Amino acid sequence: MTRYKLTIAYDGTKFHGFQRQNELRTVQGVLEKALSKMTKGKQIDVVGSGRTDAGVHAFGQVIHFDYPGEMSAENMLRAVNSLMPLDVIVKDSVIVDEAFHARFGVKKKTYQYRVDCGHYTDPFKRFYTGHYPYALVVDKIQIALKDLVGEHDFTSFAASGGVIENKVRTIYSATCVYNKNNDELVFEFTGNGFLYNMVRILVATLLEIGNGRRDVHDFLRLFEVKDRQEARGTAPASGLYLKEVFYE
Amino acid sequence: MTRYKLTIAYDGTKFHGFQRQNELRTVQGVLEKALSKMTKGKQIDVVGSGRTDAGVHAFGQVIHFDYPGEMSAENMLRAVNSLMPLDVIVKDSVIVDEAFHARFGVKKKTYQYRVDCGHYTDPFKRFYTGHYPYALVVDKIQIALKDLVGEHDFTSFAASGGVIENKVRTIYSATCVYNKNNDELVFEFTGNGFLYNMVRILVATLLEIGNGRRDVHDFLRLFEVKDRQEARGTAPASGLYLKEVFYE
Repeated sequence: MTRYKLTIAYDGTKFHGFQRQNELRTVQGVLEKALSKMTKGKQIDVVGSGRTDAGVHAFGQVIHFDYPGEMSAENMLRAVNSLMPLDVIVKDSVIVDEAFHARFGVKKKTYQYRVDCGHYTDPFKRFYTGHYPYALVVDKIQIALKDLVGEHDFTSFAASGGVIENKVRTIYSATCVYNKNNDELVFEFTGNGFLYNMVRILVATLLEIGNGRRDVHDFLRLFEVKDRQEARGTAPASGLYLKEVFYE
Repeated sequence: MTRYKLTIAYDGTKFHGFQRQNELRTVQGVLEKALSKMTKGKQIDVVGSGRTDAGVHAFGQVIHFDYPGEMSAENMLRAVNSLMPLDVIVKDSVIVDEAFHARFGVKKKTYQYRVDCGHYTDPFKRFYTGHYPYALVVDKIQIALKDLVGEHDFTSFAASGGVIENKVRTIYSATCVYNKNNDELVFEFTGNGFLYNMVRILVATLLEIGNGRRDVHDFLRLFEVKDRQEARGTAPASGLYLKEVFYE
């Protein structure tokens, strides 16, 4: 058995998320089907760094699996790519030892969130951005982002679907750049872990701050109250990208 | 009756082209259905500046139609947009007099063609670019583009589907910019008219020149021989955008 670590990108539009589900088209399902073809029917379990929801994209999702037999990392990349549909691509392939685990070994993750600020929905962006056509003061968002950095209890920012008890996470960096050319806000969040829907809830809250509907320092209050009802909004899946996963 | 001129953008991925076809989803069909709703069932003919093929996009397609009754141009824009699917958007609306005709009045058109030069197919670009993963010398393309400008017989560059006899057209400008950030070549062609598939055939030929498989000045020969078999290639529809239509 040889353990491979692959870095993959996918357009999440036509997937029912990352995780395998009977009958439904998922990223894990597509990968496991390809590996099963390569091993003439053997079931190979693919482990991802974490799930992504339906419609969420990835520039750099990381997976691992144990393959019976050995081939070079480059040949594995080519072999899997030749079996991928056009909305998934393997960008990198490395042979790792058994100590490597795509989920348990994660140290940091970076998510990107793209917001289209145009007045109308742009036909070319509908699957690739969230859309916020209301007034925004980017400076207010910049101030709020500083409150996010550090170790906080993110209970107010976790969707009810999650099962994790401890909701304390550390955000190492949280940035926002406004791109005048395409009228887009691009957020980036790097942290040691993210709760279910957390990035999308953070973005929805940040946009409300930018719009003046919340106090600039509302995050400080939201960390205290630990109440999902107080954060309310969830930005759409289409704007979210798993950008990079970091290991030791 | 009031004549409206609308400028529309669409993502061509899920359309069977611009022109109305029974049963199939087309841009003209979607627009005429919307207008029919607004007039409680009256059939209104939409005239476009020209057709676009299945998978071809538009940033600035222009249409006109005659509407029974009158409303402000702004209200027409809002009304039609409220009935459009997410892959079509009306960007501009003007009331024009009967002398205006979206097809016969065209003076110039600008097409854009995006080529992804990345090694692998990018999951996010598959519907929005052509893909050319081979070596390219952009300087050779730049030289070839100069041969294109001016009045020429484009018989070698017209797909057989066309019915037009006179294949002489004038190209006012033909440019190419390589964008290092996203590894894309962006072509732009402005001319007084384009034959069926002409831009896509020009791009395929330009890429062969850039790759060294054709002489840099092969366009001069191709204008002379007037033979579609000599140009051969057709770049995919997914990379083509009708950018702007100019009237008097």
